[in-house]
Amino acid sequence: MPSYKLIYFNLEGRGEILRYLFSYSNIDFEDRRVEFADWPALKPTIPYGQLPVVEIDGVIYNQSLAIGRYLAKKAGLTGKSELDEIRVDALIDTIDDFFSKFPWMDTEKAKKEFMEKSSPQLLAYLEKTLGNNPWFVGDSATWADFFWDTCADSFESYVPGFAKDYPKLLALKERVKAIPTIAAWIKKRPKKSQ
Amino acid sequence: MPSYKLIYFNLEGRGEILRYLFSYSNIDFEDRRVEFADWPALKPTIPYGQLPVVEIDGVIYNQSLAIGRYLAKKAGLTGKSELDEIRVDALIDTIDDFFSKFPWMDTEKAKKEFMEKSSPQLLAYLEKTLGNNPWFVGDSATWADFFWDTCADSFESYVPGFAKDYPKLLALKERVKAIPTIAAWIKKRPKKSQ
Ligand SMILES: [Mg+2]
Ligand SMILES: [Mg+2]
Repeated sequence: MPSYKLIYFNLEGRGEILRYLFSYSNIDFEDRRVEFADWPALKPTIPYGQLPVVEIDGVIYNQSLAIGRYLAKKAGLTGKSELDEIRVDALIDTIDDFFSKFPWMDTEKAKKEFMEKSSPQLLAYLEKTLGNNPWFVGDSATWADFFWDTCADSFESYVPGFAKDYPKLLALKERVKAIPTIAAWIKKRPKKSQ
Repeated sequence: MPSYKLIYFNLEGRGEILRYLFSYSNIDFEDRRVEFADWPALKPTIPYGQLPVVEIDGVIYNQSLAIGRYLAKKAGLTGKSELDEIRVDALIDTIDDFFSKFPWMDTEKAKKEFMEKSSPQLLAYLEKTLGNNPWFVGDSATWADFFWDTCADSFESYVPGFAKDYPKLLALKERVKAIPTIAAWIKKRPKKSQ
């Protein structure tokens, strides 16, 4: 088993999908949490100057979703056919596009306005894709379900109730959080700092 | 062999990586090119209202990179080990992040300014990643090389010479374009409309 060190800030954000995937697979990992004060000194040593990165046996890999896919493959969470794999990857990228556009650094008001204006398209699309199924794709969980949950938690921390009109999507979050290995991780992870 | 129909605008942009991948694998595909005038009527019928999409045996799949990865897997272009697959996916997402931030709809001046300010980080990173190797990852082409070429062509059409100080990256583009199946595609594709 390789050794894994996740390097990210002390928050959920773009790191949490990786923590979920490590936890789901019972893979031990070092969960290094960088203080913002220490980031300027660390940044030049990190490929492309962005976190999260993961060290695998001492070699640094960047881009959270590239690492996520590697972990999801090991865990059997990428979809059960080549066509399901397209669906899973497409959901990941659709949620990620939205995550990238969210005005993280802007005012509370700007965040709320962005959500009011932009989230209905995403949420309606995701709820329609889910339909009455327990999981987005196929008959078992994939990392697209996990990613929805972790991203929604990030949005929720800034715009509480943003998905309140989408009960099926909220129920999906509960299903993800009820997976025993994920539930155990959530119980033991540091309390939110954002 | 499934039937494939690519639906995109009459330009290279986000569709060209898929045309490269179809061509590389000698997969027949219908190359449907939507005129901008027809897009408003078509848009509501397209998942998430974004092109490109690909119909596979009549079922629509969206998100260009999700479809690209499916085609790249079939073609053996995703990297030769699980760690190389992370590297390939990370390059794809790094280039894609930049592509998404490029001010496509803004003025020529804004495009130039964006490139002057933002491209050195990307280009230096890509050139360092390439080093003196013929391909970004491993000892043979991957779809990350293809994606660099198609994205760079899109940038080039708006900001000519944007990568002129990066001769290794320009040579990589030539290597991609010299692959016989890609060369044949480039010879037969419609002339640029952007
Ligand atoms: Mg993306
Ligand atoms: Mg991305």
